[in-house]
Amino acid sequence: MSMKSDSVAMTSLAGERKQGAVGIFGTGDFGRSLGLRLLQAGYEVVFGSRDPKNSALVAKGSKVMTHTEAAQMAQVIFIAVQRDHYDFLTSLTPALEGKVLVDISNNLKRGQFPQSNAEYLSSLVPGASVVKGFNTVSAWALQSGALDSESTVLVCGDDPKAKQAVVDIAHSLGLSAQDRGSLGAAGELEDIPLQLFPNWRLPLWVATGLTAFFFFYLLIRDVIYAYAEKGQDISYRIMITLANKVFPIVALVMLSLCYLPGAVAAILQLYNGTKYKRFPDWLDRWMLCRKQLGLLALFSAVLHVVYTFIISIRYNVIHTSDTEVITQIKKNQSVPFDNAEAWATDAFLSLGVLGFAMFLLLGITSLPSVSNTLNWREFRFVQSKLGYLTLTVCTTHCLLYGWNKFLKPSTYKWFTPPGFMLCLVVPCIVLILKLILSIPCIDHRITLIRNGWERPTKVQSSKMDAFLEKGTTL
Amino acid sequence: MSMKSDSVAMTSLAGERKQGAVGIFGTGDFGRSLGLRLLQAGYEVVFGSRDPKNSALVAKGSKVMTHTEAAQMAQVIFIAVQRDHYDFLTSLTPALEGKVLVDISNNLKRGQFPQSNAEYLSSLVPGASVVKGFNTVSAWALQSGALDSESTVLVCGDDPKAKQAVVDIAHSLGLSAQDRGSLGAAGELEDIPLQLFPNWRLPLWVATGLTAFFFFYLLIRDVIYAYAEKGQDISYRIMITLANKVFPIVALVMLSLCYLPGAVAAILQLYNGTKYKRFPDWLDRWMLCRKQLGLLALFSAVLHVVYTFIISIRYNVIHTSDTEVITQIKKNQSVPFDNAEAWATDAFLSLGVLGFAMFLLLGITSLPSVSNTLNWREFRFVQSKLGYLTLTVCTTHCLLYGWNKFLKPSTYKWFTPPGFMLCLVVPCIVLILKLILSIPCIDHRITLIRNGWERPTKVQSSKMDAFLEKGTTL
Amino acid sequence: MSMKSDSVAMTSLAGERKQGAVGIFGTGDFGRSLGLRLLQAGYEVVFGSRDPKNSALVAKGSKVMTHTEAAQMAQVIFIAVQRDHYDFLTSLTPALEGKVLVDISNNLKRGQFPQSNAEYLSSLVPGASVVKGFNTVSAWALQSGALDSESTVLVCGDDPKAKQAVVDIAHSLGLSAQDRGSLGAAGELEDIPLQLFPNWRLPLWVATGLTAFFFFYLLIRDVIYAYAEKGQDISYRIMITLANKVFPIVALVMLSLCYLPGAVAAILQLYNGTKYKRFPDWLDRWMLCRKQLGLLALFSAVLHVVYTFIISIRYNVIHTSDTEVITQIKKNQSVPFDNAEAWATDAFLSLGVLGFAMFLLLGITSLPSVSNTLNWREFRFVQSKLGYLTLTVCTTHCLLYGWNKFLKPSTYKWFTPPGFMLCLVVPCIVLILKLILSIPCIDHRITLIRNGWERPTKVQSSKMDAFLEKGTTL
Repeated sequence: MSMKSDSVAMTSLAGERKQGAVGIFGTGDFGRSLGLRLLQAGYEVVFGSRDPKNSALVAKGSKVMTHTEAAQMAQVIFIAVQRDHYDFLTSLTPALEGKVLVDISNNLKRGQFPQSNAEYLSSLVPGASVVKGFNTVSAWALQSGALDSESTVLVCGDDPKAKQAVVDIAHSLGLSAQDRGSLGAAGELEDIPLQLFPNWRLPLWVATGLTAFFFFYLLIRDVIYAYAEKGQDISYRIMITLANKVFPIVALVMLSLCYLPGAVAAILQLYNGTKYKRFPDWLDRWMLCRKQLGLLALFSAVLHVVYTFIISIRYNVIHTSDTEVITQIKKNQSVPFDNAEAWATDAFLSLGVLGFAMFLLLGITSLPSVSNTLNWREFRFVQSKLGYLTLTVCTTHCLLYGWNKFLKPSTYKWFTPPGFMLCLVVPCIVLILKLILSIPCIDHRITLIRNGWERPTKVQSSKMDAFLEKGTTL
Repeated sequence: MSMKSDSVAMTSLAGERKQGAVGIFGTGDFGRSLGLRLLQAGYEVVFGSRDPKNSALVAKGSKVMTHTEAAQMAQVIFIAVQRDHYDFLTSLTPALEGKVLVDISNNLKRGQFPQSNAEYLSSLVPGASVVKGFNTVSAWALQSGALDSESTVLVCGDDPKAKQAVVDIAHSLGLSAQDRGSLGAAGELEDIPLQLFPNWRLPLWVATGLTAFFFFYLLIRDVIYAYAEKGQDISYRIMITLANKVFPIVALVMLSLCYLPGAVAAILQLYNGTKYKRFPDWLDRWMLCRKQLGLLALFSAVLHVVYTFIISIRYNVIHTSDTEVITQIKKNQSVPFDNAEAWATDAFLSLGVLGFAMFLLLGITSLPSVSNTLNWREFRFVQSKLGYLTLTVCTTHCLLYGWNKFLKPSTYKWFTPPGFMLCLVVPCIVLILKLILSIPCIDHRITLIRNGWERPTKVQSSKMDAFLEKGTTL
Repeated sequence: MSMKSDSVAMTSLAGERKQGAVGIFGTGDFGRSLGLRLLQAGYEVVFGSRDPKNSALVAKGSKVMTHTEAAQMAQVIFIAVQRDHYDFLTSLTPALEGKVLVDISNNLKRGQFPQSNAEYLSSLVPGASVVKGFNTVSAWALQSGALDSESTVLVCGDDPKAKQAVVDIAHSLGLSAQDRGSLGAAGELEDIPLQLFPNWRLPLWVATGLTAFFFFYLLIRDVIYAYAEKGQDISYRIMITLANKVFPIVALVMLSLCYLPGAVAAILQLYNGTKYKRFPDWLDRWMLCRKQLGLLALFSAVLHVVYTFIISIRYNVIHTSDTEVITQIKKNQSVPFDNAEAWATDAFLSLGVLGFAMFLLLGITSLPSVSNTLNWREFRFVQSKLGYLTLTVCTTHCLLYGWNKFLKPSTYKWFTPPGFMLCLVVPCIVLILKLILSIPCIDHRITLIRNGWERPTKVQSSKMDAFLEKGTTL
């Protein structure tokens, strides 16, 4: 049993009343919050402080003592001190010999120091086992209990026993824990709390770029064209009319951009005749941000829908409609009811409604708590089948918008195509590719490749092996 | 300690640098992804392969060797090979003696083989302890880290020690694990990834059936009636006008179908005089899919709401409205403002808005991550109190729609009642039943029964016992 | 090893086929559900019952015996009996000596008994170790499997070994567990299932109060004013017109009330020159319910938006619009198009749309499953940056609504300001405070204080210590 006796976790089984002592150096926010939770979980908590007499703020039941005293009492010590002040630890080297030091520190910006805080700590106190951990957890969340079992404590370190002791503490606090390898990974862990939506950067750039392009394109074709050619000032249209042209275009293009990389990947696999050749980097990165592309597309679609709903309460719409009625009466005309027009506009609107409703479903199933309840087959069904259906319906919605505009010369102001035509390019490419890839013989070939099959001319034994182990038929 | 020495999990406490060796037979997608995660968690990973020289794709740090060598090194071995190729394992029987084999395989369709893969594996290598597990986890999720602590690894097997070893590995990877019993449950676990929304089937059939019925019913009453009796072609109304009649009807009927089984159950309990008599199967199944019925009702309600929002931008609505104004002017009429009509239509619309908002709240609280934050009393409050309020408001919304239509003969085209009247039948039954069940003396009796009370004439000692242990008053 | 031999959890490693025996006294709903789950997890389950012969309803595989027999077989015993019937346990005192009794009971209302059920149980059977736990878990959830890894079992008790045994059982069932301290906390745990949205009370009162106040204020200014001064009956406006004035006001005021306490806290910290002085209680409570205030504001905003979308299908809107056209024609007038009006109304509407879309994003990120995927920096970014942007956009939306109304005398009926002016007070205060707090020198001072700095005149060594350990610069 001796080899276990220095592990804090083990003492929880040792029949004592307390789970054992855990040390915390530093009585700042994080130290105090952690102390409180450790106390609640049944640990004895000893704070190490420069001035142990002043302990007004630490949780009742914990002890405050000098750093050396605290180090002697506890096997695991959390270093809740900023990196700048680590140097005082060198004087405690004898007391810290063989102890587990948990580096919970974070930096203010990425790459602030050449060496990660945990590696720096390890170099200062070489006799201790340093574990990086708990730095992705906020003091506030720790204290408020907002930190539930979903919050995973990431740990890394070179000593597996030390890591296990920290993981056990995390589990005692009701948290999950994940081992992220050796102490060399500490820099990576220290960067995590400094990230700001890393997966959203590329999709946000794409969305911003598309929005800006189409906004200026339509501004020139609509507002500036009207001013230059007819001397009309229709600049008020910028706020809603233009926005309600830009957002649906961005939504449809970005939705199709979610499905394009899948089609490109299938073509590459067909071309390579194997799935074991790596995709080019740009394709990998593209495939990894499909969810974000889709959610930004949904956001644009929501804006389009809301802008559409308020059309009929806009001043200029009401004014135009009134003027038209008055003109009709003055001319004593009566515009006959056009059944084809009624069908076309109602079909156009109805497809929009259905496409939007399906798009909403796609968005809801991408909520973490919903997608977690789906198995792989269900997730694939929703994201692929329902996704392509949504794309088809929305593309048709857009085609119907232009049903009688394609052949009118007045559509091509200054010889440029209208926005909705430009916007149809990508979705149509995606749908045509999908159609081609769904041809039975091609689909069969892709299924074979995805099951591990490789084109016979290049067969090497190693790959045959891989195929044999996962494939279905030759 | 000897009896523990063969358990992989134990070695994590044994003070070694690594957590111990885990074997993986097969270098396919799943094997490689699993190997990577195991390496990250501190395990030594040994792949068994036919052709160990070709190991380009496995994660760095893992070893590739022959199956026999790998089997000798590891106590727990994941079989990442397809069932068709299991027979090569018979030749390894001596090396696999006493080992834990984890069957992670899935089939392509349900009931593909008479015996579950895991039981087949166990029959091939009788000397090993076979555990079924990890098959509900996808290679993609494993690799991408999308697999968080919410993802539960389900295991089953006949040897609890072997199961514990697999559970410990799952925990080391940051996953939860659940024991599903003996190896006989393996077939069930193998079916899980093949399920496609099993709980949604019945509700989807109900929704489809109701939608189809009301669509054709209203098609006949509206479009075909107008064509047959008046020679009008109003077929354009199919796309939106008809849809916007069908969806609210389906929404209201399905919402009331959520609450009907609860009322039926209460009546059955009153009739039986006990809660210990099982409900008929159809009622059980109905009660289990109430959430899905409600969400499909909400989806229909959303469609209804969106169709309503676009009413005033429809071609035929604008045309009709313009025509009416022109007619008024030509006839020099002036339609006086009707205060009662203004009240009725505004009340009708306002109740619709409120009902929809409450329905949305119901939907949001049924999101897994939201309902998990509610305690039982709060969940009951939302789903029962708020649910009945929503049903009452929506039913009143529907009643106000027909407020001045019930007595008009023109409402009953071809002597059939309009859709909204048919649709009121179920909600009104539910609300009347609820009203009756809320009468104090009946409500008191139901509360008694739900607390375990049974009608005295049938008292038997066993049931008295059950009541005594959970009941409140006699 | 002897000291471990009485722990149920340990037996799972002991190489037996079963995990060990767990006792359950009582065969009610909870007892039976728990028994089933324990059986599935590999435990041997023994029910203690008065009448062991009648065991029709317990899960197959479990045994039913007398209480004494069951107590002898199991180390951990769940007491699934109501508190009223606890007294029979006194007769079992010898058999229960040294056993772990798990009190899972709940009461019907808070403070029903002066002593918590678990403490009462402990006083009846002083020789046993009583652990309170599992009472926050419902029988239904336990049975249906709705209880996943997110469901945390809360335990408390005076004997850490006993608590550990219960925690181990919870883990075996796939549940998380959290230690809530000594048995003195049992009363608190027993109150948890009786809570009904405790965090929502204050925000709901605020929302109800604001809604009622603005409703009556606007009722007087609109409906009663029109009746008293002009003899018009416009009471039909109550249902929608008034509602659509009240809800946006409530939404904007409550949104700004989310951000006011943060500004007040910053001012208090500036005034105190330290963050270590506690905030007054009212401020603490206010800050803790900001999320709920925001969600209720969002709900009001949704109602406002939906009411806006149906404006143009309302009877009185259509009637007024038709009348206006007819009047124009009769007078042979033609209202010229007003570009400024078109700009102002479109900008007003467009800001409303954008503000609402951003508000929706805020709401979505407050879903537990979404906010859990954000790190601290991302969460702050969304709730603070996006939050203030939303408040600014919505306030501007409201200002544009009144752009040409502020100076008209007709706006001030009966010398009272219109609703939208009253509603602008709080948001404008918040935005001005934010602006002041963002002035570089003030912002720098707040950042210093939040990093632990204190105003020099009051420096005491203890606080210097705290600052030194977490602060950045002096």
